[in-house]
Amino acid sequence: MGLFTGKTKNHDYIIIIGCGRLGANLADTLSDSGGNVLIIDYNKDSFRKLSPSFGGLTLTGDATDIDVLHEAQIEKATGVVSVTNNDNTNIMVAQLAKELFNIQRVIARLYDHERECVYREFGIDTICPAVLSAKEISKLLDGIYKEEI
Amino acid sequence: MGLFTGKTKNHDYIIIIGCGRLGANLADTLSDSGGNVLIIDYNKDSFRKLSPSFGGLTLTGDATDIDVLHEAQIEKATGVVSVTNNDNTNIMVAQLAKELFNIQRVIARLYDHERECVYREFGIDTICPAVLSAKEISKLLDGIYKEEI
Repeated sequence: MGLFTGKTKNHDYIIIIGCGRLGANLADTLSDSGGNVLIIDYNKDSFRKLSPSFGGLTLTGDATDIDVLHEAQIEKATGVVSVTNNDNTNIMVAQLAKELFNIQRVIARLYDHERECVYREFGIDTICPAVLSAKEISKLLDGIYKEEI
Repeated sequence: MGLFTGKTKNHDYIIIIGCGRLGANLADTLSDSGGNVLIIDYNKDSFRKLSPSFGGLTLTGDATDIDVLHEAQIEKATGVVSVTNNDNTNIMVAQLAKELFNIQRVIARLYDHERECVYREFGIDTICPAVLSAKEISKLLDGIYKEEI
């Protein structure tokens, strides 16, 4: 597996862990906008969720295994995004990326938003799809009243 | 079951279908900001996800059943938000709310964002948590480069 040589955008290199709906969508979005992306999942069938136009790399393996992170050349990453379906996996990978590999920007998906403060202590940004979606729906609903005024 | 009498905000009355993470979070958010909320789920154990401070109503039942919607007094709703884990249920409830009950604002959660256009034809707003979260993460990652400049 070689690293990207073409179409670099500020020499970014983003590693995504977990190729579920969110991971695949993010990988496609970043790849379409010219970013260098590698996505890791322990189940290679998950990569089917990627769009046919996905221009990044895929790696099958368990991202809590340091050998897998080395294989992904994590030391060259400008950002690591852990969005598996498991909060514990996400925090473990995020901590490895931050503490062991000193990655600049680390983001983890979080189901249980009560644990957000734990992540913040470690300098890890979090994203909680349920909270984000609830806020967006509130905004859409607020539109009802603005239209009425 | 009686309708709300206190703390009305512009006489809103929002019905939420599905008390999963997103539904419960939205119900709590709207209720905390003084909105009148009723949340429906076919499994009454799901209501445990609501915060202890939730000030709205709960109704156990299948929201694709018109009798249940009548019981929820859907005709008085200013907004209906269908956020079950099933896209087909969401579109069915959303269509009932829009076509049969003529609800002003109808929002449905959508896993498969390729089907968004179908909803739009019916005047139904959609929210796709994976797409929303991917966009938010992209924004956070963009921050890396802005900080560098």
